[in-house]
Amino acid sequence: MNELQPVTDAGEWLVKAAEQHAIDFAVTADEHDRDGSFPVQNVTAMHHSGLLGAAVPPELGGMGVDSVHDLAVAISRLARGDATSALVATMHVAQTIQAARQWRHAVRTGDEETAAGLAGFLTPFASGEVLVAAAVTENGTYFLNPLTEATPTVDGYELTGHKSFVTSSPVAQLFVVTCRVPGDPPVFGGCLVARDTPGVTVHDNWDSLGMRATGSNDVSFDHCPLPAEVVATYGPWGQWTTPLLLEFVGALHVLLGAFLGIAEAAREHIVNTVAVRRKAPSGTLLADRPAVQQLIAEIEIALTAARATLGRTARTIDDYFASHTPEQDSDAELHELLKEHQCTNLVVKRAAMSIVDLAMTASGGGGYLASNPLSRLYRDVRAGPFMQPYSPIEAWEYIARVTLERDPHIDV
Amino acid sequence: MNELQPVTDAGEWLVKAAEQHAIDFAVTADEHDRDGSFPVQNVTAMHHSGLLGAAVPPELGGMGVDSVHDLAVAISRLARGDATSALVATMHVAQTIQAARQWRHAVRTGDEETAAGLAGFLTPFASGEVLVAAAVTENGTYFLNPLTEATPTVDGYELTGHKSFVTSSPVAQLFVVTCRVPGDPPVFGGCLVARDTPGVTVHDNWDSLGMRATGSNDVSFDHCPLPAEVVATYGPWGQWTTPLLLEFVGALHVLLGAFLGIAEAAREHIVNTVAVRRKAPSGTLLADRPAVQQLIAEIEIALTAARATLGRTARTIDDYFASHTPEQDSDAELHELLKEHQCTNLVVKRAAMSIVDLAMTASGGGGYLASNPLSRLYRDVRAGPFMQPYSPIEAWEYIARVTLERDPHIDV
Amino acid sequence: MNELQPVTDAGEWLVKAAEQHAIDFAVTADEHDRDGSFPVQNVTAMHHSGLLGAAVPPELGGMGVDSVHDLAVAISRLARGDATSALVATMHVAQTIQAARQWRHAVRTGDEETAAGLAGFLTPFASGEVLVAAAVTENGTYFLNPLTEATPTVDGYELTGHKSFVTSSPVAQLFVVTCRVPGDPPVFGGCLVARDTPGVTVHDNWDSLGMRATGSNDVSFDHCPLPAEVVATYGPWGQWTTPLLLEFVGALHVLLGAFLGIAEAAREHIVNTVAVRRKAPSGTLLADRPAVQQLIAEIEIALTAARATLGRTARTIDDYFASHTPEQDSDAELHELLKEHQCTNLVVKRAAMSIVDLAMTASGGGGYLASNPLSRLYRDVRAGPFMQPYSPIEAWEYIARVTLERDPHIDV
Amino acid sequence: MNELQPVTDAGEWLVKAAEQHAIDFAVTADEHDRDGSFPVQNVTAMHHSGLLGAAVPPELGGMGVDSVHDLAVAISRLARGDATSALVATMHVAQTIQAARQWRHAVRTGDEETAAGLAGFLTPFASGEVLVAAAVTENGTYFLNPLTEATPTVDGYELTGHKSFVTSSPVAQLFVVTCRVPGDPPVFGGCLVARDTPGVTVHDNWDSLGMRATGSNDVSFDHCPLPAEVVATYGPWGQWTTPLLLEFVGALHVLLGAFLGIAEAAREHIVNTVAVRRKAPSGTLLADRPAVQQLIAEIEIALTAARATLGRTARTIDDYFASHTPEQDSDAELHELLKEHQCTNLVVKRAAMSIVDLAMTASGGGGYLASNPLSRLYRDVRAGPFMQPYSPIEAWEYIARVTLERDPHIDV
Repeated sequence: MNELQPVTDAGEWLVKAAEQHAIDFAVTADEHDRDGSFPVQNVTAMHHSGLLGAAVPPELGGMGVDSVHDLAVAISRLARGDATSALVATMHVAQTIQAARQWRHAVRTGDEETAAGLAGFLTPFASGEVLVAAAVTENGTYFLNPLTEATPTVDGYELTGHKSFVTSSPVAQLFVVTCRVPGDPPVFGGCLVARDTPGVTVHDNWDSLGMRATGSNDVSFDHCPLPAEVVATYGPWGQWTTPLLLEFVGALHVLLGAFLGIAEAAREHIVNTVAVRRKAPSGTLLADRPAVQQLIAEIEIALTAARATLGRTARTIDDYFASHTPEQDSDAELHELLKEHQCTNLVVKRAAMSIVDLAMTASGGGGYLASNPLSRLYRDVRAGPFMQPYSPIEAWEYIARVTLERDPHIDV
Repeated sequence: MNELQPVTDAGEWLVKAAEQHAIDFAVTADEHDRDGSFPVQNVTAMHHSGLLGAAVPPELGGMGVDSVHDLAVAISRLARGDATSALVATMHVAQTIQAARQWRHAVRTGDEETAAGLAGFLTPFASGEVLVAAAVTENGTYFLNPLTEATPTVDGYELTGHKSFVTSSPVAQLFVVTCRVPGDPPVFGGCLVARDTPGVTVHDNWDSLGMRATGSNDVSFDHCPLPAEVVATYGPWGQWTTPLLLEFVGALHVLLGAFLGIAEAAREHIVNTVAVRRKAPSGTLLADRPAVQQLIAEIEIALTAARATLGRTARTIDDYFASHTPEQDSDAELHELLKEHQCTNLVVKRAAMSIVDLAMTASGGGGYLASNPLSRLYRDVRAGPFMQPYSPIEAWEYIARVTLERDPHIDV
Repeated sequence: MNELQPVTDAGEWLVKAAEQHAIDFAVTADEHDRDGSFPVQNVTAMHHSGLLGAAVPPELGGMGVDSVHDLAVAISRLARGDATSALVATMHVAQTIQAARQWRHAVRTGDEETAAGLAGFLTPFASGEVLVAAAVTENGTYFLNPLTEATPTVDGYELTGHKSFVTSSPVAQLFVVTCRVPGDPPVFGGCLVARDTPGVTVHDNWDSLGMRATGSNDVSFDHCPLPAEVVATYGPWGQWTTPLLLEFVGALHVLLGAFLGIAEAAREHIVNTVAVRRKAPSGTLLADRPAVQQLIAEIEIALTAARATLGRTARTIDDYFASHTPEQDSDAELHELLKEHQCTNLVVKRAAMSIVDLAMTASGGGGYLASNPLSRLYRDVRAGPFMQPYSPIEAWEYIARVTLERDPHIDV
Repeated sequence: MNELQPVTDAGEWLVKAAEQHAIDFAVTADEHDRDGSFPVQNVTAMHHSGLLGAAVPPELGGMGVDSVHDLAVAISRLARGDATSALVATMHVAQTIQAARQWRHAVRTGDEETAAGLAGFLTPFASGEVLVAAAVTENGTYFLNPLTEATPTVDGYELTGHKSFVTSSPVAQLFVVTCRVPGDPPVFGGCLVARDTPGVTVHDNWDSLGMRATGSNDVSFDHCPLPAEVVATYGPWGQWTTPLLLEFVGALHVLLGAFLGIAEAAREHIVNTVAVRRKAPSGTLLADRPAVQQLIAEIEIALTAARATLGRTARTIDDYFASHTPEQDSDAELHELLKEHQCTNLVVKRAAMSIVDLAMTASGGGGYLASNPLSRLYRDVRAGPFMQPYSPIEAWEYIARVTLERDPHIDV
């Protein structure tokens, strides 16, 4: 089983930690799924192991994994045991990848002020003080066009709006919130909002087909007062800009690991099942029946493609970061990278859905029972296509625009 | 919307009744799904309307629908509102199709004794006295090779064994149980077992991905005493025989209606959704976005194939029954019919799964919420491939054997 | 083998004629394919048998087949032997379906003048005097927007333009040419142009992947003088109008038969091949190898869907014509019909391509040799998606627009 | 366009040479395809450039490319211009990969005799003296079970049998022929047969759907006298053995490059086409039409998977060879590698066929003309699934057996 392997030393440590967590978290995954209860104890464990500080530099208390490839591999290992925790960890870790890169650059170039600011941002991610949740999605609009608004006030800003699919919301101490800052033209903003800010309401309405333990509730913000320094702006509202491209390229690829891990878990389960089950009256092992072999082979084929594609694109992303300082960042190159991620995203998620489905078929009915892990994996894996920024139906246009050298902006 | 239409007058009546039930049953479908509670009130309603006696001759209190096509269409209408009730009704009605055909033949040929016996069997199905459940599936063996055993005794038989996936088991008064009758060679048998027979245990263990309200529990039989007259034999154990072919061809095709109905419900839901939803900032109707149109078109394409194929094969089955008396039944022709059903089965179920999946994608995340009907339909439709007699992986061999004029028996 | 059967007496006669032609034409099909030579002798034979006058009323010398279903079935039979002749026949016969319907209506309602005009049009199609070719496609524009222009003159019109894919052009005596008639707004026109009209040039440039014997050359028209009576107008240029909808619904569905026939020929070939071939060292019949059985089964599944869908939509079209006089024609209903045809078109052509491909795989390399019929079928079947009016990529939009009750016009 | 890049210096040189050849060979590719004529001049050019000696050690006159990855990348570049030459080059180069590895090992370990023997074998491959063809396939048997027989004689052997699909046969000076050496049990053998050996007949019967210029004729051997030293034996006839596994793992993966290159050529062609074509009346660029964008996106998605999967498995193979001396070769590990190759094989070839097909659809009919490169690519790419050792229908069983830790031998 030629699974993906970390390519850095720090990554190796991280993957081992993730594998251990996976074993532990697998025990309660079904129960949390059934109840829709958030696995608080897993967050605690991932704080203790240091996994949540994976991408934070060691000087700031983290593990110092600077490879998107290795982060994605670690998330895939975690997801084999519990996809919920893989999502929770991704949402937290992903916030630190770019900041860590910029901190390293600031230190390298002797820009102490920037370094200090970034250190202040990064340290709590590794210390276990906070778990962060991303409040990005809004119903009925596009992620580049948030309608949640940060209005300037004398003291800073006031934030008002309503977000959905906020994974980790039951316990997150901090929300990263995308917003619109009024102006002419309006500006795309990102805020760091503490949970106890007046006006923050975490709803208790997450009830879904799968990924049921992620606590991906709605969160609303009602005239929340924010100090100026927690609101960053990233260029014109509704447009891709360099910082957004950077954040998405890294974060999204790490997230993809979760779906690879789900597929690997389904594969493992069904291979073990058919290897021991026999069917009367002939007593032939399922593993020796041609039709079962065909299903197993198609699982292996899909998995081979998913792993290779995730791995190669991750290394391409790593290569980009290794060869570009922040000053050298290029939107054109980042769109090429994001396009390649989007292609990979569809390869991996389609493969993952197909693998779980093939395993379900090979289970001969057993997988349809709630007590069988396949029935949870089947529901969890279907979350894939809904992840930001591009749904399958938007991705086609984006991929084609970049390929055909048209303006990558999609007019929604 | 070129939906399938009944081809007989009795069928027209039946389809209208099913459509009315669908409207009523839709109201509580989500609640029963969530609880896994059996919709007892729907059974009562279907007794009252006469739907459960659909295939019973009018002279015996039924509706007299003798067209498999029209039964399947009615089941598809029912499934639009509630797939559970569609399954429950199919399992009951399917038991009466062949018996009604034989009763009609006995009456036509003046064979009063046979007619009287069949009348005794059929009348309770239409009167509302009983709901029947089929106890056919066993873990780890093949439907032609049941391990549940009916051992001859001085008074009749003693039945011992364990069945799974017994839809309607929470309230069924009667179980149709397939079994093995010892002998040299052993014989394939079918028993009618009353719920209150000593030794019958209906377990409360149905907990599944979808079709959660069907009460498809395990049922075990522990030395249940049976009078001789409730045990029928159908030829050698492990072999297709004429009566089994007849039962399956009719019953399975009616069942297919349930999956067409699920697909039609998903299609209806998503067409209505995209027709009214707009997305900021452009405010374009989802219906006018090319990628949504692509998904809708693929739904229509799949539905066109599913309806046509179900309809044509159903009429081929009807034509067979119209042109053959029971004496003229031919295993070779019945295998051709069953093969055509198996092909149709895969066309319809694959189309149905694809349609629900496309609708889910077009829902843009909304369909992933438990409150959205698509999330139930997505789970329900996945039951399709597990239905008897052939799973997709067994069907290939069967279809090829009949096509290539090899012995249709599959050596499991 | 549950092949489609004609539903009218005239259709039954026609299908038998087509079957006999198929046997004869199969002999030379490979040779014409290789040379790219047009099978003139097949046209003569189809004139003699009366097949080319299939849809012309008996009173006017034809066979009087008024069922689109039966015409499509006959074309499918023809295509089993020779897809080229199936295309040639379709292009000719399709021109007469609506005219025959209008003639029947005119006769019924006592409109003698109209009847006489239509009789003049129809009679030569059945008498063997002419073979007609459709000159519809133009490079770089859309079939509703022909750029070929018919400019009014004192005596009638002058036609100038360039058409491609004109099947039968090597021998056709008459071309049906779509055009633009200038005006404000311009009008969509259709001309009947005799081959010997000054300015007509039939190029000799048809050289293609498949359908190589169809002589689908370019035809150019250079200031061809036309009498006024051979130019008909059909409403605004660039728009669907009732007469265009009528022509397309009938003609296109008949054409679909050709692709079903190709698929049936591939299926027949491979079933016969695997039934007799053995492979050393075990000597097992290919028919008994599980992987071959899987391929054969998928062929049967795809064929079951293709036949049923073609057949059902054809009968829906027949039902429309049976229940509507020309005065009752409704664009809304015709768009519903055309949408259903478009869905069917994709079901049948995808199935046909898939069937030939599966047969190719099952051939184990044999099908890749030029001498094997599969290698011609593989090239011929790929023509399907390019047929008018909608390519697969335009069809999605059209199907969705009709489904979602948007204006069916596509803005190209 | 994130194409695969060589990972060694020698590979970089090779890939540049291949790119130059591709430009040159593209000019005559269509002509050779049409005539079915073998591109002799391309062989000469590839001898001159040194490409045919790519894998031969520099000490023996070759380029010294020891990376299967880089060989495959070079073959893919070549195939962009001319798939025929890519196949011809592969068949030659592939014979030298293992011999070069063993020569390096012999030199390293001071085994001068072995080194000298291998040097004698390898030198002519790089010197331009010979072009080698592989005569492996036989009709009606399996590649591990050749029926061509090498019977021992006093002087050596006599070879008799008939081979098919012998690429390069029109000019090859040397044939590598698999055979059966009688005995108890019989043994699998490989012979090097000079073209001018008495009894060798190269037939002139290659006439195929695609790959028409490869000269893949039948070659028959009629009591050909062979000296003992040109016949090697590899263990029991009908069984996988270490040397066969080694040869196949390397050779087959290089061959896969040809299909990637075909796909890349189709992609390049269609991207360039839609980027400049407009369609009346709107004049919209095809590149801006949503349905075209969908096709282009799916091409990019498939290509992303094909490249990554080919690349990753190639590096896994390279890693194996880098970490194992010939003494350390392990059948179990080699079966794992071959299984991973088989999975990759299906990923790449399916993707390649899909890419060419999508490009064909996006061409809107243009691709169906013989003058359009897509029509050749469409025929060439279909050769993929027929390549040895496993057809798609055999590969399922092999992949599953290795995955499920069953005996990898397939009982044909």
